[in-house]
Amino acid sequence: MPKFKAIVEYDGSNYHGWQLQPNANTVQGEIEKALSRIFHERIVVFGAGRTDAGVHATGQVVHVLVPWKHSADDLKKALNSLLPDDICILSVSTAQNDFHARHSAISKTYRYQIVNQQTRSPLKRLYFWEIAYPLDLGKLQEASKLLIGIHDFSSFGAPTSGTPSTVRKIHEAFWEKDENSNTFSFTVRGSGFLRFMVRSLVGTLVRVGLGKISVGDFADIFMACDRSKAGPIAKPQGLFLVKVEYQEG
Amino acid sequence: MPKFKAIVEYDGSNYHGWQLQPNANTVQGEIEKALSRIFHERIVVFGAGRTDAGVHATGQVVHVLVPWKHSADDLKKALNSLLPDDICILSVSTAQNDFHARHSAISKTYRYQIVNQQTRSPLKRLYFWEIAYPLDLGKLQEASKLLIGIHDFSSFGAPTSGTPSTVRKIHEAFWEKDENSNTFSFTVRGSGFLRFMVRSLVGTLVRVGLGKISVGDFADIFMACDRSKAGPIAKPQGLFLVKVEYQEG
Repeated sequence: MPKFKAIVEYDGSNYHGWQLQPNANTVQGEIEKALSRIFHERIVVFGAGRTDAGVHATGQVVHVLVPWKHSADDLKKALNSLLPDDICILSVSTAQNDFHARHSAISKTYRYQIVNQQTRSPLKRLYFWEIAYPLDLGKLQEASKLLIGIHDFSSFGAPTSGTPSTVRKIHEAFWEKDENSNTFSFTVRGSGFLRFMVRSLVGTLVRVGLGKISVGDFADIFMACDRSKAGPIAKPQGLFLVKVEYQEG
Repeated sequence: MPKFKAIVEYDGSNYHGWQLQPNANTVQGEIEKALSRIFHERIVVFGAGRTDAGVHATGQVVHVLVPWKHSADDLKKALNSLLPDDICILSVSTAQNDFHARHSAISKTYRYQIVNQQTRSPLKRLYFWEIAYPLDLGKLQEASKLLIGIHDFSSFGAPTSGTPSTVRKIHEAFWEKDENSNTFSFTVRGSGFLRFMVRSLVGTLVRVGLGKISVGDFADIFMACDRSKAGPIAKPQGLFLVKVEYQEG
């Protein structure tokens, strides 16, 4: 049976996350529903990242094994005609037999968006964490540099099912500030991420950016390997899974 | 009684436009409701632009006459604590006795956003018009230049109540394209606008951008002063009232 790889964008606002759950709307559930309407049987969708409730994606990657005899692009069109308007298949391509959306991934990139101004922003509220007190870009950058490399991230998340290790490799971690729109964005690319890891990192980094703790305190929390030391996790609506990379394709 | 001027941002998605209507949620209605909770009487809010259902604002301006004895900033805080999260008062200042949000305005600026790509965009759908076929920036610019100056815009809208003339002055009208996000934005600043004028202009300009009609055809439609000649009006979710300017303040 042919295997296909697809890139998916979704607005996670109205979903209980990526992963299929009984009695809850999930992104995986919606895609499987669309596939079952095409193929008249249950089709399982494998996703690269199990995004939490309310988290978005511009570059989630999935694979499926389906008895489809037409082109990859026609499969994309068929799926998009059945999916709700907050989920869209951006592209479909044929995949090697041994390709697995999650296990073959060599890195994932997440972006976290913050709007930093005293007043609320009705037009940003769905896709940003609103922070009223001023954030210090320099401190955010300095603390984020500590993340780069191979480290035990157990202060910032729980192991994922099937992978007991809490060690991950972070390739890039940096902040950008847009003065015109009072927004900050944090980009982090790594070999993989623990459950809640990006939101936990952002929650604790924001405490550094607000001056509530120092960069040294952040380093202590990081090295403590103790989740109780980290700050509260950042709100889901600011987080986007933006890219999943593979050795080939 | 002191007069206050306020700048308002709102996400129009869930409103039947700006203007108060019986049995429908409107932005004016929500602000008046918040004011009546503060002052225990009906307070009328005067807005600069009567945005249609689904249209947004980052810079709507209003004025109110209210028996408020504290600072303008405290009035902002009181209102924001009572308003829903899709409406926010960005600033409040005291205004001259003769200030009127609509009548004193010397210009208004609107922005219209389009995402131009073959696939839908779940994360842009609430704030952009999605157009699948490629738009030609050069043609859009060329046609838009014709709008600048004092003209009869009756091909693109109906007169507003109280102002029978369909002549308006347009100061600026230009398009910008962002290659990274496949988005186009149209900015238009004028002395005032007819009902549906910006959306009607965008609807007809897009026909030029798609190559369905020529710039010359656009000029003919403009000069015909006949609404039946214009293209269909653009979707409301791409439109934003971004700025209202006054002689002073």
